[in-house]
Amino acid sequence: MLNVAVLGFGTVGCGVVEVITSNSEKIAKSAGCEIGVKYIVDIRDFPDSKYRELLVKDFATVENDPDVRVVVETIGGVGVAYEFTKRSLLAGKNVVTSNKELVATRGTELLAIAKKMNVNYLFEASVGGGIPILRPITLCLSANRIEEVYGIFNGTTNYIITAMSSRGASFGDVLKEAQAMGYAEANPAADIEGLDTCRKVSIIAALSFGKHIDPDLISTEGISGITVEDMKNAELAGYRIKLLGRALMGADGRITAYVAPHLVNCGSLISGTDGVMNAITVRGNATGDVMFYGPGAGSLPTASAVVGDIIDIAGHLEKRKDIGWEDCGPDSVAGVGELRTGWYVRTAAGKDAVKALFPDASFIDGASYTAFITGENCADEIRPLLEKLPALSAFRILD
Amino acid sequence: MLNVAVLGFGTVGCGVVEVITSNSEKIAKSAGCEIGVKYIVDIRDFPDSKYRELLVKDFATVENDPDVRVVVETIGGVGVAYEFTKRSLLAGKNVVTSNKELVATRGTELLAIAKKMNVNYLFEASVGGGIPILRPITLCLSANRIEEVYGIFNGTTNYIITAMSSRGASFGDVLKEAQAMGYAEANPAADIEGLDTCRKVSIIAALSFGKHIDPDLISTEGISGITVEDMKNAELAGYRIKLLGRALMGADGRITAYVAPHLVNCGSLISGTDGVMNAITVRGNATGDVMFYGPGAGSLPTASAVVGDIIDIAGHLEKRKDIGWEDCGPDSVAGVGELRTGWYVRTAAGKDAVKALFPDASFIDGASYTAFITGENCADEIRPLLEKLPALSAFRILD
Repeated sequence: MLNVAVLGFGTVGCGVVEVITSNSEKIAKSAGCEIGVKYIVDIRDFPDSKYRELLVKDFATVENDPDVRVVVETIGGVGVAYEFTKRSLLAGKNVVTSNKELVATRGTELLAIAKKMNVNYLFEASVGGGIPILRPITLCLSANRIEEVYGIFNGTTNYIITAMSSRGASFGDVLKEAQAMGYAEANPAADIEGLDTCRKVSIIAALSFGKHIDPDLISTEGISGITVEDMKNAELAGYRIKLLGRALMGADGRITAYVAPHLVNCGSLISGTDGVMNAITVRGNATGDVMFYGPGAGSLPTASAVVGDIIDIAGHLEKRKDIGWEDCGPDSVAGVGELRTGWYVRTAAGKDAVKALFPDASFIDGASYTAFITGENCADEIRPLLEKLPALSAFRILD
Repeated sequence: MLNVAVLGFGTVGCGVVEVITSNSEKIAKSAGCEIGVKYIVDIRDFPDSKYRELLVKDFATVENDPDVRVVVETIGGVGVAYEFTKRSLLAGKNVVTSNKELVATRGTELLAIAKKMNVNYLFEASVGGGIPILRPITLCLSANRIEEVYGIFNGTTNYIITAMSSRGASFGDVLKEAQAMGYAEANPAADIEGLDTCRKVSIIAALSFGKHIDPDLISTEGISGITVEDMKNAELAGYRIKLLGRALMGADGRITAYVAPHLVNCGSLISGTDGVMNAITVRGNATGDVMFYGPGAGSLPTASAVVGDIIDIAGHLEKRKDIGWEDCGPDSVAGVGELRTGWYVRTAAGKDAVKALFPDASFIDGASYTAFITGENCADEIRPLLEKLPALSAFRILD
């Protein structure tokens, strides 16, 4: 029996206990041993839970029990979660998490402690929820030099964008509705301002390129600037608007990483990724583009990834899995301002004013306001022109 | 240095040598040791190849060289490939292959020999080419009871279907063109009759459900019965036609597995999978539907998967990866005739004749001939009615 302690009995924690219990037979077959939950740590009371006998309030119970080989951290944030993760690793326990904020900001340090203690620190669930993505990159695509990763990493923002696009409703209205339905949190800033995507880009880029970029160094723009007019204009030109996280390895070894709304081709699979689904494309120099699609969040999908990590640990109790990356500073990061792409622009200015500043502008017929597509420009070149115009909206085009 | 011998210097074999050579630095980092090709075995001469010094004609050279730890079999077929694989395993060597026919028909026996000899027999490249799919199922989704897998597994037939659909060209014309362009083989039966898909379904079902079904027990229908009229009718009704492989686990523990053209919803990602691309969906009871998309064939994508397996072996030289399945006979297989789905039917008969046999028929307006969609029927029920009508075409609908 491999004993597990689950820290935090929220959405993901409940899902983990549920999956371990209901799929126990399949899990034992996959892991080669039975897996059981010995403790659930939460400061709250759950008198009606069928798992109430497993609940303890004091983390020290877990820390001091040598029977617990795996700790599942589903607390979230970087406070208590960081402290308990560190103490678990230092107590010689393997740790599995879905906490992208913690992995993105403290992952380097925690992986180093795990290595020193010869235990595993795994976090498949931190990117893409139930979609297998981190392990395929590190294992299946390990023969490739990864050139680029990009995709839709956040279900809440994609739900809002999809609803705006399909119903013509405003950002504010859809956000309120999403909050009422539980798809968006009361304080939705981490989602809608792109921070959640930014953390996931930091993690996936670190595993893809072997270099970790601090989330603070990743240029991040959310979805609050997208209007229904922009969506309609984009569709007239054969595009849809999606919030993408993107990381590219340059020929000079520097990484460009950023989060921003993009126009994507209507025919592409990523443009058909709707609602709370995520879709992540990885470009390897041998395999070309491969895409992973599925539910990027939710109790059971996320639990599926967490328990997959626990099963993997069951086979790596003696010889840990060697996962890691170099920490890298601003010198390894190329500013997103240097990245050349086409742009979509909407402005209240007339066509003549546009032509004077953008001689290669291709106007969108029937658009609200004046809307046009530019040839390839880097942001540093185009920004002064957009200010001069001035532009009401400007988004990159992914080709 | 981990020494590899490549058997067969064709499309995939060349790709493997190319990837190992050109990505050597990345591969060494991923594997924790250098990986090098010591021999290439082929009965042909390649006087102009830059790898000609590695070429040997006699497999015994590889078999008798204890320095060779990994044999890559890219010969294809079940003759020499079977013999050399068996001899390699019995000589204590790990084997990696892209040979779906061999794995689907002799995999059970070869995996048993690998287990006995404590070596690995890996075959990620045998399904989905460069797409990570088998390892994600066995590792990442290991906490799930897999309920269903389905998808587009064959690039050649998808290329033909896509060209027929986009250009209105006939099956025969597009096939000739695909042969001229090297997308289809001179003898294309294995592809167009669905055999290649059938073998891949046998492998993915075995890993998903833990039970191996012989390809001969999998009902297999190819694409030669699809006409341009059917494609146009399908589009009028909001569908596209795709050749799908599909395997489902029933509540009674019996597996339904088959290959057939299906109508898929125009809005679905699988309907947007065009040309030589593959897309495979896996339904887990915790994670829900996840989809894997990418190049299902080709020299470098397939080599990417093969070399990924070699890298995995580098970490499992002492403790082999425990991959396997039960062999199961006809009793574990549910006939596809029992599976209930909606159907698309095209007939030269009039609407009254249709209504008499199919009271729930929903006619497609503007269709060539009379075309309609039925409610859910199993094949055993609907076949006699289709013969009586008679039907010109009849395909299942995937909802």
